[in-house]
Amino acid sequence: MYRRTPFTVITLGTGAALPARGRYPTAQLVQIGGASYLVDCGEGTQERLRSEGINFVGIDRIFIGHLHGDHYLGLMGLISSMHLLGRKKELHVHGPKELKEVLDVQLRASGTYLRFPLHVHTVLHNSGVVLFSDKRVTITSLALKHRIPCTGFLFKEVLGPRRLRPDRVESIPIRERVAVKNGADVTLSDGTKIPNVELTFDPHPVRSYAYCSDTAYEPALIPFLLGVDLLYHEATFTNAMVAKAKETMHSTAGQAAEIAKSARVSHLLIGHFSSRFKSVDGLLEEARAIFPNTDLSYEGGRFLVGEG
Amino acid sequence: MYRRTPFTVITLGTGAALPARGRYPTAQLVQIGGASYLVDCGEGTQERLRSEGINFVGIDRIFIGHLHGDHYLGLMGLISSMHLLGRKKELHVHGPKELKEVLDVQLRASGTYLRFPLHVHTVLHNSGVVLFSDKRVTITSLALKHRIPCTGFLFKEVLGPRRLRPDRVESIPIRERVAVKNGADVTLSDGTKIPNVELTFDPHPVRSYAYCSDTAYEPALIPFLLGVDLLYHEATFTNAMVAKAKETMHSTAGQAAEIAKSARVSHLLIGHFSSRFKSVDGLLEEARAIFPNTDLSYEGGRFLVGEG
Repeated sequence: MYRRTPFTVITLGTGAALPARGRYPTAQLVQIGGASYLVDCGEGTQERLRSEGINFVGIDRIFIGHLHGDHYLGLMGLISSMHLLGRKKELHVHGPKELKEVLDVQLRASGTYLRFPLHVHTVLHNSGVVLFSDKRVTITSLALKHRIPCTGFLFKEVLGPRRLRPDRVESIPIRERVAVKNGADVTLSDGTKIPNVELTFDPHPVRSYAYCSDTAYEPALIPFLLGVDLLYHEATFTNAMVAKAKETMHSTAGQAAEIAKSARVSHLLIGHFSSRFKSVDGLLEEARAIFPNTDLSYEGGRFLVGEG
Repeated sequence: MYRRTPFTVITLGTGAALPARGRYPTAQLVQIGGASYLVDCGEGTQERLRSEGINFVGIDRIFIGHLHGDHYLGLMGLISSMHLLGRKKELHVHGPKELKEVLDVQLRASGTYLRFPLHVHTVLHNSGVVLFSDKRVTITSLALKHRIPCTGFLFKEVLGPRRLRPDRVESIPIRERVAVKNGADVTLSDGTKIPNVELTFDPHPVRSYAYCSDTAYEPALIPFLLGVDLLYHEATFTNAMVAKAKETMHSTAGQAAEIAKSARVSHLLIGHFSSRFKSVDGLLEEARAIFPNTDLSYEGGRFLVGEG
């Protein structure tokens, strides 16, 4: 039985609007079967990627949820470094409608003619819109609730083929194996029919990751988050500051946990911690009281989707 | 005799276009008598200022020489953090004409209404234009020679008053001391006249600092740099790469030293090192062969103008 390809989320920065206390602004790298997707790109993200030993030149796509500086100010520098390091492969960036103008103005001002095609796609403020899909993954939008249009992203694997049973694989003629993986039965030369179920295991379960930053408490998200393996949900404040959370349209750790609980996700990861918290243990405690399988994101944290 | 106020240049980043090898993109803080001026502001400058223990909220003015990313991409984040940290005092930013649009587009996209007045002033590509002056300093432009319009900045102290001799100060009536500092003689009640020269020392010599990054070898700068105490001049390459320097409109360490020598400056500081150099000792050696009083800038370096 082949080893499953890892589906990993690397949290590069876990701070909120004001970088402080050794926390960096938001950026995450999502790796699925050889492809890598950058989600948000706060100032200094290229430096963060470098210090995590990640070759960022080959990043496949970039998704920017909203245009508050702590979520995108590293993008221009990252693109510029990709250019200087010789990237040739086209780059797709998905983000709010103003993003294209922001990039165009800066490219023009710097007299830069990129050596690779840059495609900037507008993400509208809706949930459930497919932004990208290939044979491995489908990425859809999540309409978060923030002061400016802000989207989250749902990464869901595409259902794979049925898996050949190692003890039966020799009995399947080579030319029929693809069909068997797709559910076909096998008829031997003597006319014996072997049903597919005896030759294969079910496909691996589909893994999914949802990224929700920045957002007020938003129950309308729950139908889109149902049963995800890993949910990243911002937790800027504690419940003691619920009024502040409401005013700034952020969430408390308790609210993040309520969403995780209602959506029956497997694992909750919290981040986007206000710089006022020297220690974030209180945030973790608050969330775990409601949703026990919660963890803190941290700078350089690597989380396996479907294994937490 | 009062202690002279320090005139300091803090080099926050010494890398070139591509940040690497522990070097950060360009930014310098120039401190003169209580005021602080930021010169260029590459990505991550706010983080660099923080790690140097500098309270950046109070920076008086910001000067951006040109709009290549490694010289300004940290500006939006710095302004945003000043806002979040409660700055109320107006901020003046001087830079190329496109800078205002770059900032406006980003402020609009993020829905930010700054709590302090932000004034963006256009710096034209000329030498010798006064950009700012107060009772302590005059800041003028230097027309560098680069791929896009690029200016350097010359910080020159304003000549101070004559200094009262400590051993004679008691003999000067208090109400006349300001006049004496400005050169007046004193007439005692018995009619004796004491010439000013017996009561005062000359003013402190005027100190000056010139910042030249990024630029090809440009002898037209020399008349504006004559006799400065400290010259920062970029030295992206060595003379072995002079063709590359010419093509990219940067300088070699040798060329930086030639400028320093021709302008008879006191002290040369080089920086903006290409990421290809693991060690920059070769750059220093090359410059010192021509202009011995050369030093390397480094991350967090503090250089006293007029004392090197």
